Amino acid sequence: MKIVGIEHIGIASDDLSKANKFWNLVLGINNTCTEDIDNQGVITDVYDTGNGKIEILLSKYPDSAIAKFIRKRGCGIHHFCLSVESIDEAINELKENNIEIIGNDYTYGAEGHKVIFVHPRSTGGVLLELAERISK
Amino acid sequence: MKIVGIEHIGIASDDLSKANKFWNLVLGINNTCTEDIDNQGVITDVYDTGNGKIEILLSKYPDSAIAKFIRKRGCGIHHFCLSVESIDEAINELKENNIEIIGNDYTYGAEGHKVIFVHPRSTGGVLLELAERISK
Repeated sequence: MKIVGIEHIGIASDDLSKANKFWNLVLGINNTCTEDIDNQGVITDVYDTGNGKIEILLSKYPDSAIAKFIRKRGCGIHHFCLSVESIDEAINELKENNIEIIGNDYTYGAEGHKVIFVHPRSTGGVLLELAERISK
Repeated sequence: MKIVGIEHIGIASDDLSKANKFWNLVLGINNTCTEDIDNQGVITDVYDTGNGKIEILLSKYPDSAIAKFIRKRGCGIHHFCLSVESIDEAINELKENNIEIIGNDYTYGAEGHKVIFVHPRSTGGVLLELAERISK
């Protein structure tokens, strides 16, 4: 597969306003959008460095993946995401290599990207997202 | 301060060869260098996507920060690093904003960058590194 770069780092948070103070007011990174991604149970605040984004993830429901993560490990880095040229090609190659993916096919994530998650068991403990940007 | 982009994501690992199989052989990301950073007690294997790097961190000593992290939380994402234009300016602004940094001034990290770490208490649970690239 062709990896294009680091798309974003996903951070589990319980306070978007406090996060904004640090990432925007102290570090000066632009808060480019806020999105409600209901199929993942999160609201995400996106900070764009111009070379890779930081996504602050706030849980909408007590049983969402982010809520469970925070209960178990506290707030902090939840996953990171690499851009791929083709999500179909990536999924095929992961399956050929017996890499454990979450779900059988891609879903739609932030900004309408086609995304798949790779299980930490197959990556050395990292929850890894792969995303193909949709051409606009 | 001026943030330039995501420099790298640091991953605590206990097996560089297994990491290489995933990041290089399955995902196809180039393993561009291996470095022994004794002042941080780690050997780091760098995978460069072309737009942000992945640094796999192997502890050299049982009392290193990475060894302690793995004992407490297991292998996985340990920190991430943003590039800044000026580390001196960044440190001054962090201090002015009462952000908790680790140590009082920068040290030298991988590739000879000037680096400072920001404590998770000030970032919403994220161990954040800031790095200024040394011009060659």
